[in-house]
Amino acid sequence: MAVITILGAGAMGSALATPLTQAGWETRLWGTWLDDHLIDACEAGKPHPRTNVPLAPGTRLYRSGQIDEALAGADAVFIAVASVGVPKITEMALHAISKASVLLCTTKGFWTDPDGRIQLLPDAIRWIAADKGALLPPIVGVGGPCKANEVAEGKPTATIYGSLDENSAIRMAREISTDVYRIEPTTDEVGVEVCAPMKNVYAIALGIADGLEEGTGFPHHNLKSAIFAQAVREMSIVSTELGARPETAFGLAGVGDLEVTGLSGRNKVYGVRIGRGEGAIEALAAMEAAEQTVEGVPAAGLALTLVQQREGLLDRLPLLQAVTAIIAGAEDPAALATAAALPPRV
Amino acid sequence: MAVITILGAGAMGSALATPLTQAGWETRLWGTWLDDHLIDACEAGKPHPRTNVPLAPGTRLYRSGQIDEALAGADAVFIAVASVGVPKITEMALHAISKASVLLCTTKGFWTDPDGRIQLLPDAIRWIAADKGALLPPIVGVGGPCKANEVAEGKPTATIYGSLDENSAIRMAREISTDVYRIEPTTDEVGVEVCAPMKNVYAIALGIADGLEEGTGFPHHNLKSAIFAQAVREMSIVSTELGARPETAFGLAGVGDLEVTGLSGRNKVYGVRIGRGEGAIEALAAMEAAEQTVEGVPAAGLALTLVQQREGLLDRLPLLQAVTAIIAGAEDPAALATAAALPPRV
Repeated sequence: MAVITILGAGAMGSALATPLTQAGWETRLWGTWLDDHLIDACEAGKPHPRTNVPLAPGTRLYRSGQIDEALAGADAVFIAVASVGVPKITEMALHAISKASVLLCTTKGFWTDPDGRIQLLPDAIRWIAADKGALLPPIVGVGGPCKANEVAEGKPTATIYGSLDENSAIRMAREISTDVYRIEPTTDEVGVEVCAPMKNVYAIALGIADGLEEGTGFPHHNLKSAIFAQAVREMSIVSTELGARPETAFGLAGVGDLEVTGLSGRNKVYGVRIGRGEGAIEALAAMEAAEQTVEGVPAAGLALTLVQQREGLLDRLPLLQAVTAIIAGAEDPAALATAAALPPRV
Repeated sequence: MAVITILGAGAMGSALATPLTQAGWETRLWGTWLDDHLIDACEAGKPHPRTNVPLAPGTRLYRSGQIDEALAGADAVFIAVASVGVPKITEMALHAISKASVLLCTTKGFWTDPDGRIQLLPDAIRWIAADKGALLPPIVGVGGPCKANEVAEGKPTATIYGSLDENSAIRMAREISTDVYRIEPTTDEVGVEVCAPMKNVYAIALGIADGLEEGTGFPHHNLKSAIFAQAVREMSIVSTELGARPETAFGLAGVGDLEVTGLSGRNKVYGVRIGRGEGAIEALAAMEAAEQTVEGVPAAGLALTLVQQREGLLDRLPLLQAVTAIIAGAEDPAALATAAALPPRV
């Protein structure tokens, strides 16, 4: 059995153990220094606290001090930590990553390089490796509509694995797919990496439409659907501008992931609160006080910077402009989102 | 004030009076011989029975026997009847339509021509006009995510008006748009006409995912999103095969309309019942007994015939195949829909 080591024992890291063990990998799950209570629960045979699903049988558990044991002889390494943790975890695991045949990563996000330019997460990993003089195996970014609790439970899931190295994308698709966890391989790393953080931004806008329905008692399904279509259009504009292929935003990585993110999750909940009439700044403060991170908020700011670094691009993205204004506490967020989502007068 | 005559006083016909009166048209609403009770309610100032919203003030009402008065001097005619009624209504109104500058149509569907080939609804209208030796003005097909009750209530709505005659699409977009009812003009008539009936078929599959959640108590959001992405892919394959531009399926007509259709409506409800475990044939019979037409069912059969009339196309549409098999009462509809929506093993 080939060895795969998952770095990060949160919701997604622990959930991946379900398809990986089923696909025949020796699956090792390493928890960071923040994950001890999660490992405790798994060791006690309790449901994982983040997914409410027990860890897949056969998964080997490692605590933060055991990273070397977790990575010894790993053929593949799977990063599944929060985006802020990626640089540090990459450094800690770099020696073993260099010896692996492939590095997979579910974490997504924008990254500001030392020159102040916004880059994608694999570029951060490459920058760190180059800085340390380490060689990297091909990187495979994992995207698509994928709620961790459903993956852990073995519910049907379609994902997309993007790598600049086509053979690695295809090999991982072949070696990780199960009957219910299926993988579309693509060489469009950029498309997969751009859509993932941007869909969090647009899910806030979808939530606003849901919140208007809750607040007024009248459905706003036409508005929600207009926002959805405009969000897909803007994801395709940004990703193709960065070199992606158009079909990626129109497939699992864009359309599919936006759909799942608009069905539940904190970005949507934040939007719902705004749509119901709560101030955007107050709503965010309340959620942060309850330790509910809203990933779309920092992603919106970074996306705006990225777009502003490319001439003429921002004018084509009215919904991104509206969401960033709404997050900043602008007046009448519902009107702003509406104006941005409806076609302009001709 | 230019005159526009809406033929059909059901949900969509009556709802259109809201933007049309607001945009400054003299708006006439003609009810068919099936619509007398709807006209009664509107005349009494009650909410329209199908939208639960009162008719826009200033709308002029005409009963089935008054079609000539309703159409006298009409600059534009707007067909908004059920698809089965289009041929007869077109014939009845043909003289006035010939004198109008534009014919708009919200009705969508596939039509079997005298040679047995499946065509789109504007082709049916053209065939009838040619058969009667009448000249037609440009036809404008109306698509996009548009629930009638929200249009009637003046809630924000984004639509797409498609015409082979670009000037007519642009003119109608300019002359019908209001602050909240916005129109994207396009020359892609085929794209608008293909996506509308097909999204009803795929909304059944989305409903199945919702039904699985209700039946099992566990979310199937990953599956619903995979179905959504596959449905969009298949709408783009069919529409481009028929000559449409790819962006239409990826915009308001495809992505947007599928989103709104998956949020509510009978196609979705039918799918939910199947997903919960009811037999497809029994569920349809129960809905028909309650006078609930499920448009996606006949549309699926016609779409299948259309696709089979073009070599090699059906193999690229596993989800369409699955839905037609499910409607026919095949075993284990959930498994069929799942297999069709997830990427194949590589």
